[in-house]
Amino acid sequence: MATRPIIFGEIQDIPEGHWFEGRKEMMPSSFHRNWGAGIDGNGTTGTSAIVLSGGYEDDEDNGEEIIYTGAGGNDPNTGKQIEDQSWSNRGNAGLRKSQDEGLPVRVIRGHTHKSPYSPEKGYTYGGLYSVVDSWEEIGKSGFKICRFKLLYMGNNLLKRTPEQIELKITNKAAERKTGAVLRVIRDTKVAHDIKKLYDFKCQVCQFALPTKSGHYAEGAHIKPLGTPHNGHDSSDNLLCLCPNHHVMFDRGSFSIKDDLELIGEVTGKLFLHPSHKLNNKNLKYHRESHGYH
Amino acid sequence: MATRPIIFGEIQDIPEGHWFEGRKEMMPSSFHRNWGAGIDGNGTTGTSAIVLSGGYEDDEDNGEEIIYTGAGGNDPNTGKQIEDQSWSNRGNAGLRKSQDEGLPVRVIRGHTHKSPYSPEKGYTYGGLYSVVDSWEEIGKSGFKICRFKLLYMGNNLLKRTPEQIELKITNKAAERKTGAVLRVIRDTKVAHDIKKLYDFKCQVCQFALPTKSGHYAEGAHIKPLGTPHNGHDSSDNLLCLCPNHHVMFDRGSFSIKDDLELIGEVTGKLFLHPSHKLNNKNLKYHRESHGYH
Repeated sequence: MATRPIIFGEIQDIPEGHWFEGRKEMMPSSFHRNWGAGIDGNGTTGTSAIVLSGGYEDDEDNGEEIIYTGAGGNDPNTGKQIEDQSWSNRGNAGLRKSQDEGLPVRVIRGHTHKSPYSPEKGYTYGGLYSVVDSWEEIGKSGFKICRFKLLYMGNNLLKRTPEQIELKITNKAAERKTGAVLRVIRDTKVAHDIKKLYDFKCQVCQFALPTKSGHYAEGAHIKPLGTPHNGHDSSDNLLCLCPNHHVMFDRGSFSIKDDLELIGEVTGKLFLHPSHKLNNKNLKYHRESHGYH
Repeated sequence: MATRPIIFGEIQDIPEGHWFEGRKEMMPSSFHRNWGAGIDGNGTTGTSAIVLSGGYEDDEDNGEEIIYTGAGGNDPNTGKQIEDQSWSNRGNAGLRKSQDEGLPVRVIRGHTHKSPYSPEKGYTYGGLYSVVDSWEEIGKSGFKICRFKLLYMGNNLLKRTPEQIELKITNKAAERKTGAVLRVIRDTKVAHDIKKLYDFKCQVCQFALPTKSGHYAEGAHIKPLGTPHNGHDSSDNLLCLCPNHHVMFDRGSFSIKDDLELIGEVTGKLFLHPSHKLNNKNLKYHRESHGYH
């Protein structure tokens, strides 16, 4: 059997809600390539898909929020942990990689998974989720388990009932009663490609933040996305930056001249990979927006 | 007249939607303390409230998203710009400070402001907004204007019609089709107090990110908020960190011993202000969650 490529995000003709009779049917399309394992992926590529099949007693599924138990250490028949889990397990390392790199994870629910979202038989595709947190704890059986929090990021938010949407928003509003959302970092395919190109090293300071499974960087748009700037999510409008230089760049603490010289609170020169071309119009937009004339 | 204190966030007995006959009525409660100016605040304290009154031809009001023009340089009768605006204007500096520090801004709409959200007469309170972006550009009249993007963060999201909510979510979903939300930084009152205590210097590296109007730092929860950790938003569970060390801390790249020694990818000792007490249970939770035993 040839190795199938790993594919991240949505796969054509398999929309959210798609029903599979069995696990084998998920394999030809690379939807989920591992017949036996719940996690499809590893610490090098990241994880593209997971199956919830009731195999782990500590799993929690609230629909939009899933607390998922990593792989290993359980009795396949009872789902009970019989030994410690490990972060070096390829599935667990893969989910951490997806967290670091902001990769979307397809969530599949099996009939043996106990939740109101599971099908009567077979498997359903629950949409794209993000891994937003990972940690370890002692599970119900007294053994160490690797845990992940996944949040729904899919397109079917649109099809929710108003009550479901309201519930979601109520929870959010309660949290932010006295506060304010400051930073929402979106990670798109093109941003991910740019970060990979630089090996997650900041184009300003060359620092790649170490994480437990690799490195972390952010894709920074030179001309911002969204109104009123309407910059593009394209490589000629993207930089790979560490969070500190991303904040400073977005706030205009420094800017970049056409010859890549840094101006403002940061000096030196922007590191630019030979295969990465920037659009000078975007650089000009950033300079002018922040008063560098 | 005694100087009234500046108050951020909601003010008792003045809920969103509250109607004022005139500007004077906003003053005794500190709701908006400046009779003449649109912006209440300055570069030292930040801005607590703004009035949209049609005084600036470049303003845009889409309800949840406002593109606001800063103060200065306009003819009060026509609203037309007659000279450049400046970032050193106290109102403009105040809005930048609110952006840096994540302070909530009360938005008030006057009857002379042209938008579907304005009252027939008098003024209405439109709720709390966050300043998420600031930049400069050339306005319709050819002069430089200071611009701010504000997003609605108030509690009345709950009272929206399903259609309004759906529209909002549709826009969001379109943006994230191929991506994933990685980081949402919330900034609460207690987090803000901690950051002020440290003068926005990171408790790990002592670096305060310079911005155009001051400094930027993030409030990092030791035991995370939200399920399943359910940490508290209290000072004994909060650190003032730069974005880089915040990312690394949340991902367990380093942790903190009870004697404040840093362990993992970062070495040294956590800087702790004499008046800042941490709860050792929270430190222990962080260590154990990330495998520091």
